[in-house]
Amino acid sequence: MKKLSMVDKGFLLAENREMPMHVGGVSLFTLPEGVDEQEFLHNLAHTIRNTDALLPPFGDRLKLGRAGLMGNAQWEPDPALDMEYHVRHSALPKPGRYRELFTLVSRLHGTLLERSRPLWEMHLIEGLQNRQFAVYTKTHHAAVDGARSVHISRSMLSSDPNYVLENSPLSLESWHRYKEALLAGQQGLPTEEELRNVADMLKSTFDSSANLYRALKGFTKAWAGRGGDLTLPHLRVPGSVLNSRVDGARRFVAQSWPFARIHRLGKAYGGTFNDAVLGMCAGALRTYLINHAELPDQGLKAMVPVSLRQKGDVDSGNAVAAISADLSTHIADPAERIRAIMASVQAGKAFYQGMSPKEVELVSMLMQSPSALFMPLGLTPRLPPYNVAISNVPGIRETMYWNGARMDGSYPLSIVTDGMAMNITLVTYGENVDFGIIACRRSLPQVQRLIDYMEEALCDLEVAAGFNDAANEGKSKPRRKAAARKKSVAKKKVTKAKTTTEA
Amino acid sequence: MKKLSMVDKGFLLAENREMPMHVGGVSLFTLPEGVDEQEFLHNLAHTIRNTDALLPPFGDRLKLGRAGLMGNAQWEPDPALDMEYHVRHSALPKPGRYRELFTLVSRLHGTLLERSRPLWEMHLIEGLQNRQFAVYTKTHHAAVDGARSVHISRSMLSSDPNYVLENSPLSLESWHRYKEALLAGQQGLPTEEELRNVADMLKSTFDSSANLYRALKGFTKAWAGRGGDLTLPHLRVPGSVLNSRVDGARRFVAQSWPFARIHRLGKAYGGTFNDAVLGMCAGALRTYLINHAELPDQGLKAMVPVSLRQKGDVDSGNAVAAISADLSTHIADPAERIRAIMASVQAGKAFYQGMSPKEVELVSMLMQSPSALFMPLGLTPRLPPYNVAISNVPGIRETMYWNGARMDGSYPLSIVTDGMAMNITLVTYGENVDFGIIACRRSLPQVQRLIDYMEEALCDLEVAAGFNDAANEGKSKPRRKAAARKKSVAKKKVTKAKTTTEA
Repeated sequence: MKKLSMVDKGFLLAENREMPMHVGGVSLFTLPEGVDEQEFLHNLAHTIRNTDALLPPFGDRLKLGRAGLMGNAQWEPDPALDMEYHVRHSALPKPGRYRELFTLVSRLHGTLLERSRPLWEMHLIEGLQNRQFAVYTKTHHAAVDGARSVHISRSMLSSDPNYVLENSPLSLESWHRYKEALLAGQQGLPTEEELRNVADMLKSTFDSSANLYRALKGFTKAWAGRGGDLTLPHLRVPGSVLNSRVDGARRFVAQSWPFARIHRLGKAYGGTFNDAVLGMCAGALRTYLINHAELPDQGLKAMVPVSLRQKGDVDSGNAVAAISADLSTHIADPAERIRAIMASVQAGKAFYQGMSPKEVELVSMLMQSPSALFMPLGLTPRLPPYNVAISNVPGIRETMYWNGARMDGSYPLSIVTDGMAMNITLVTYGENVDFGIIACRRSLPQVQRLIDYMEEALCDLEVAAGFNDAANEGKSKPRRKAAARKKSVAKKKVTKAKTTTEA
Repeated sequence: MKKLSMVDKGFLLAENREMPMHVGGVSLFTLPEGVDEQEFLHNLAHTIRNTDALLPPFGDRLKLGRAGLMGNAQWEPDPALDMEYHVRHSALPKPGRYRELFTLVSRLHGTLLERSRPLWEMHLIEGLQNRQFAVYTKTHHAAVDGARSVHISRSMLSSDPNYVLENSPLSLESWHRYKEALLAGQQGLPTEEELRNVADMLKSTFDSSANLYRALKGFTKAWAGRGGDLTLPHLRVPGSVLNSRVDGARRFVAQSWPFARIHRLGKAYGGTFNDAVLGMCAGALRTYLINHAELPDQGLKAMVPVSLRQKGDVDSGNAVAAISADLSTHIADPAERIRAIMASVQAGKAFYQGMSPKEVELVSMLMQSPSALFMPLGLTPRLPPYNVAISNVPGIRETMYWNGARMDGSYPLSIVTDGMAMNITLVTYGENVDFGIIACRRSLPQVQRLIDYMEEALCDLEVAAGFNDAANEGKSKPRRKAAARKKSVAKKKVTKAKTTTEA
């Protein structure tokens, strides 16, 4: 029986009814032509449920000793595994727009997983318009981390529309077949679990590792806003409504934008795709705070992952570091704002100079952990030095199919905690970037508006960059309904968002 | 601001993620002819949400002091009441049978209410066959007791199919109108809340009330199986799978039977409607334990409410006492079994002899409380002296309408706790008796079979009573699908259950 790591236990210890510690995703699919929805979904559910040997930890439940989570915690096979319980069939009320989907997914994401069973659920959701259906999955962060769940999603998808799954995608067979294909062909990314193992190992030798100690000490100082030249100016984190206490109700919204559109914008400002994403989010958050709350005098700080790899450098691999970027939300001019953001990203990268890759990994992992984790882990209970997390999950660039059903988008749902009431996660898929925003429903009312505000911010940046074709660039695909824009903050011509997103 | 009573706090203290302390109900309606389902349900949701002044506690949330629930707890108006959160729209996957409805309701009943908001949810559920829709409501036992929720349901229903609600049924206006009608016309039943107030008052003067002390002392002795002649033979409670620990997942099933059929059966054995219900449940539980678990050597004990009123006695009003009846599940012969049950009901009534009505009320209230409540209340932590609760809620004998939609049935969902993994509650409505069975999904697998077993038990008793027309009596109404019987335990001709109930 596999023991739980300290980090895994941390997620369980930190969890309560207001702060579930599961992550999720909702994927949109289009039914293959000519098939009957009911039959297709029933067959799909049957295939997923029908497995003898499940990939760990999908068949495993928690086994705690007398000391509970403070003692020895292991995974043990659930003696009465009930696949009907885990794989569920749901439906949307009419008219079955994305609005109804987001409402349902918001509710599903707000309820706790059952601790006496394997810590996951999968919901096949029917009732969408235009022959689409959706799949919402929910896995506890203690059981499956983000990277592994991406792998699991991938293992059940195929770029071949004629490929039909024989085994459950949760079965060991499917997993082995996927791993073989991965080893034979494409290069696998290092998983988050690998990072976590490193960190666990490092933590267990905490006092004996001088390098680690140095990294952590510097990190903690910068975190706390002390420490001489280690104190980065962008680490002054303003108070905001984004950093309220949360209750248990969530609001989820999602939207896709063309990757090329955002990438082109980043280049126009001499920056990256990631810089343009931050520019979009910064503009949207500024508008949201002005309209629905109060805009702080200082710029909001965002935790973002950045690549530390220099141009032409292939040795350092996919070194990704978490930094706190200044979203410069106090700056009204969009071009000036994005340049300030880019400068702060550069400063954030400089913070990691002189650290070994392992140290970078550890510090980044700590920075990305929900703040609620720190106390159970015995680390500083201070809030992390940012107002909001904007995470970028590498996705799949090909169009994928699940038993012939085309995947149209895949939107992540992360965790919100006290002091961190919103999470923005984006996944690249096909030619799009799929954004998923999850927020506390009470402290961040009408957060669904952010989707419109992001489109507006994108347009403002495009106009400021001198693009004249901005209005055509982001046009909706014909199969998606164009959203009616509620109001134009910047009062200029903008493109339309691709999905109707008010939930 | 209204303070919470000790009993209310008990429900909150006893609650955890495996044992939610809310009660619920699911009602079936048929859409009025000619109306569009989508429009009708949207209008209904709009009317319910659209109110300024809500009947307490529907607009109120918990306000706790520094000592939490151990200190001063009050109800305060929710400063950001979000009616969209409370009044929800849901849908069933195709084919939209009762099976899909029960699956959804089981899930909804298994999740915790959000403590920072008013402790209730209402779900309008579309997608049923035959122009039916369903409404599932969920209210915390600390906020609304069973009797009050019956009153609230009634206040939004009318026996006039042409009556259209103007105000939200949760509004103060609707409540006042309902109360006026009640005072002017029919006689209101004493509410459970009234009983509870009596008990609270009595408890606060615990040591000074000699009578109460005597009653409680006798009760506790009988409870513990000690105390000389107070020890009733039927209080020897066998261990059974019904008394396992529970996890957080539930299974709900429901079914209606004609009141006249069950009533006639009771009379045939010289007993009451209630005796026949116990006979039905006893036979079904016997079959369930034989097929799915292990049948104890001794009869299962059931907590049941009985009327203490003697024939011709009108003064004592609706004196209802909770007794522990011996279901005599160890007896194979159905006629012999029901006679043993009737004898134990008589013995149970005798236990209350010499008690004042107030004492009867208090003891009954204690007996009906979930065992998990006892510790927070400072009472004996022993399990109550029964294996299962079979509660009988007085309902409405007229056919009722909600904005013109005919109510076809109304099924209660109660609470299960550690040591009490199943609850059977029945409501009389129209010409039917509507049974709702809720159970822990893990410790009581395939509990949906109980519905078939109840029908079988009813037939066995009818045959044993010499009824020849048993097979015709319980015929399904044409608009409901007859359930295919899985197997005949008694190997004789039986009637069909009225709804397909496997979830």
